[in-house]
Amino acid sequence: MNTTEFQVTGMTCGHCEMSVREEVEEVPGVESVEVSHQDGTLVVTGAEPVDETAVISAVQEAGYQAVRSA
Amino acid sequence: MNTTEFQVTGMTCGHCEMSVREEVEEVPGVESVEVSHQDGTLVVTGAEPVDETAVISAVQEAGYQAVRSA
Repeated sequence: MNTTEFQVTGMTCGHCEMSVREEVEEVPGVESVEVSHQDGTLVVTGAEPVDETAVISAVQEAGYQAVRSA
Repeated sequence: MNTTEFQVTGMTCGHCEMSVREEVEEVPGVESVEVSHQDGTLVVTGAEPVDETAVISAVQEAGYQAVRSA
């Protein structure tokens, strides 16, 4: 499994987490999504490495900004 | 028209506002709902005075706490 972590800014509550989760789960190859508004983290797992740009775009669709964690 | 104002605690974003709105709109007699997470306000309008207890319960259903404004 390949895990990729992102920092997401702007999430304030569980509703925000749900919005991000719903969009990111639609990205091809994504098998699981963990998201925390408290930590501002998004962890995406798939059998293959995920398309980071697609994940970032999905987060933007939900109304937030993401960057790949260093 | 009768307008009743409440203070709502716990809302952090537009998703929270939407959750409150959806529940409060279901209260019988409610014709319009204005809600602001920034101000923590909920303004409910109806032809007759609204049932304040029903509004407060609806807010609780959404996951927040409301009190009638003084």
